[in-house]
Amino acid sequence: MRLSQYFLPTLRENPSEAQIVSHRLMLRAGMVRQSSAGIYSWLPMGLRVLRNIEQIVREEQNRSGAIELLMPTLQPAELWKESGRYEDYGKEMLRIRDRHERDLLYGPTNEEMITEIFRASVKSYRDLPRNLYHIQWKFRDEVRPRFGVMRGREFLMKDAYSFDLDQEGARHAYNKMFVAYLKTFARMGLQAIPMRADTGPIGGDMSHEFIILAETGESQVYCHKDFTTFDAAVNVDFDDVAKVQSFVDHWTSLYAATDEKHDEAAFAAIPEDRRVTARGIEVGHIFYFGTKYSDPLKCAVAGPKGESITLHMGSYGIGVSRLVGGIIEASHDDAGIIWPEAVAPFKVGIVNLKPADAACAAAAADLDAKLAAAGIEALVDDRDASAGEKFATMDLIGLPWQLVVGPRGVKAGTVELKQRRGGKREEISAESALARLAGAA
Amino acid sequence: MRLSQYFLPTLRENPSEAQIVSHRLMLRAGMVRQSSAGIYSWLPMGLRVLRNIEQIVREEQNRSGAIELLMPTLQPAELWKESGRYEDYGKEMLRIRDRHERDLLYGPTNEEMITEIFRASVKSYRDLPRNLYHIQWKFRDEVRPRFGVMRGREFLMKDAYSFDLDQEGARHAYNKMFVAYLKTFARMGLQAIPMRADTGPIGGDMSHEFIILAETGESQVYCHKDFTTFDAAVNVDFDDVAKVQSFVDHWTSLYAATDEKHDEAAFAAIPEDRRVTARGIEVGHIFYFGTKYSDPLKCAVAGPKGESITLHMGSYGIGVSRLVGGIIEASHDDAGIIWPEAVAPFKVGIVNLKPADAACAAAAADLDAKLAAAGIEALVDDRDASAGEKFATMDLIGLPWQLVVGPRGVKAGTVELKQRRGGKREEISAESALARLAGAA
Repeated sequence: MRLSQYFLPTLRENPSEAQIVSHRLMLRAGMVRQSSAGIYSWLPMGLRVLRNIEQIVREEQNRSGAIELLMPTLQPAELWKESGRYEDYGKEMLRIRDRHERDLLYGPTNEEMITEIFRASVKSYRDLPRNLYHIQWKFRDEVRPRFGVMRGREFLMKDAYSFDLDQEGARHAYNKMFVAYLKTFARMGLQAIPMRADTGPIGGDMSHEFIILAETGESQVYCHKDFTTFDAAVNVDFDDVAKVQSFVDHWTSLYAATDEKHDEAAFAAIPEDRRVTARGIEVGHIFYFGTKYSDPLKCAVAGPKGESITLHMGSYGIGVSRLVGGIIEASHDDAGIIWPEAVAPFKVGIVNLKPADAACAAAAADLDAKLAAAGIEALVDDRDASAGEKFATMDLIGLPWQLVVGPRGVKAGTVELKQRRGGKREEISAESALARLAGAA
Repeated sequence: MRLSQYFLPTLRENPSEAQIVSHRLMLRAGMVRQSSAGIYSWLPMGLRVLRNIEQIVREEQNRSGAIELLMPTLQPAELWKESGRYEDYGKEMLRIRDRHERDLLYGPTNEEMITEIFRASVKSYRDLPRNLYHIQWKFRDEVRPRFGVMRGREFLMKDAYSFDLDQEGARHAYNKMFVAYLKTFARMGLQAIPMRADTGPIGGDMSHEFIILAETGESQVYCHKDFTTFDAAVNVDFDDVAKVQSFVDHWTSLYAATDEKHDEAAFAAIPEDRRVTARGIEVGHIFYFGTKYSDPLKCAVAGPKGESITLHMGSYGIGVSRLVGGIIEASHDDAGIIWPEAVAPFKVGIVNLKPADAACAAAAADLDAKLAAAGIEALVDDRDASAGEKFATMDLIGLPWQLVVGPRGVKAGTVELKQRRGGKREEISAESALARLAGAA
């Protein structure tokens, strides 16, 4: 993609409305534009990152055996009256009346709707267990939307819902999501820590928030330092109930809690040099809630002897649009964003210092074509602008690799390869640079 | 994917609420489920088709040089007051008031919003032309939603918006979309015919609806029979203004009009045996509207001499969710859907006649694995059900190819390969079947 033909409205100045670094950088890097309080348009560069994150979430959900569907954004009020949440939900629910005076709402979550779909579709214990998920826009009418996409009103969420015949089955469903979540975040370059969260009237131990540490995090968190070096990039056979359980046991063996569930005494028992007190951003939440919705909505199947079995459910959310901000909070410097490769909008930026020079233009186009042939998308800065401006833009938008093409290098057959993270630069042959980038693909 | 672990709630009976064949088949094949009037959940099988169609649309938009972004579903009322459409739009617009009593609406289309984004981002003639598109859910509060996803209220649309310095530029932008649309529909197995459509007060010739012929079409259409054999699968260099124009000239050289623009005299001038009078389904619409929105919204850039140039715009829509129904209307038989390969939810269905038999299960799993290795996704019917039920399900859901695995064939090393379209069956070796399917990939 050539920048001269792209749509990347970067800003030179720091926008005054942005209080946190991810919001500031997303506006400056031309990733989003606010249309109303807490409602954003995703400009081309922002959308590419959003889609990359969405795709990683999807792949790991599928790998764990969850099945994708798509529920609509608008829901009928009746469903929420059946569960009793229509009145309880309060002002965060955006209530809508259509032309026939029927009450609708913009879904803030989908427990009711998925339960309705399941009860209408599945009648026999033979068709259990199932885990169904979708990735869809939600709306919560926050009283004070802020922090850009981190606390927006219209936001993209992955929400999965598991259906099981009993609590034991539900625990395995829960554990599978636990594993899938850690792998999902690890693929995005994030060290997420599962922290015990509130279970409300359900009780038990099956509620975890997944937290990444960042200075601007919304909540205070406490955990054992060893979590920061735990490795989630292991392969677990999702059908092996015991292996999945032991993975979860390992990841819950050390202390980790948000403010809400913090236990001073348990924390004090950790050796002092292993205690971490930090700010955290919640990027996922998994929760077992038993028959909370299947009871009132009568979601049951016939068992082996014809008996009626009310299903046990859990729900599993990942804030897809929020993650865009979360990753920036965890990965940036003074010059701008530093994208982990797996979510980067383009893997490589080609800086053409002299686009008007035919040899430079040809060299840049050649690099671009060879990268494309290797399956690597590049953004070519072919604007009529100063070298300083181009370098600043590249650092701001945070592509993992930069290739600098200039008249001197073109003559010598070399390019400058710069890694955004760390800033290491090398003057090498174009072939070596291509081999390096394709090898690292 | 194994059907015993999938989520495919098919129906045996014809649902009484469905008046047209696509609606009936989508419900029976477990593709969608209605949640309120005109609002549907896309179940896993339906979602796969929807995503395939969306991806074809995206690829052809990108190929033509359009750039993808994503605007939110909810829009501020102020924008529509600027253009004057807030009052004009009438009851089809879903109006919403948030907790702070601010007026929002669920976007039925995005001319205002994209114009606002463009005017805020682009200041110089150097950054023109541009064509920006998104694929997003829209809402139109139809008074009588019907025909399933063909006339729903919440629907998925691709809408592109072009920005040019003058009408000549806008014509090229229009022509590029004209070409891209024909290629898009052709890839889906549809013969779409561009028909002159109303231009309203703008006048001129730059408004076309793309119509596919189907008995249940909503409108009466008239066209020259040669259109049904025109070939859109040609490569046109989008940068070559004259070539693109001549492609458009070719496709507009013969008579084609909807009822609204029908000219009896012109139609009568066609030789009688080349006249087609039929029902049609609109699947796309392209429209040049000049400065209709850029004038009131003050979307202008500085020209070469610093003068202000108000931009010329066009909009280009494709009904992505509607196409799912449209393709079924155009491609089905009494037994069910017949998916064109490019949009099929799975390319191959493997019918295992005896899942309890170890040899059959192994043979089915082996075929599935080998197809997967060739990049072909299959759905394996491993349910404990009768052969008749399995054949009926496969025909109903319409996968292009069926592989039937049974004890007799497994012993002989053969499978039955059936093509859904036409119904041709062959008993061949598993290797030949795989080679055939992989070759046709």
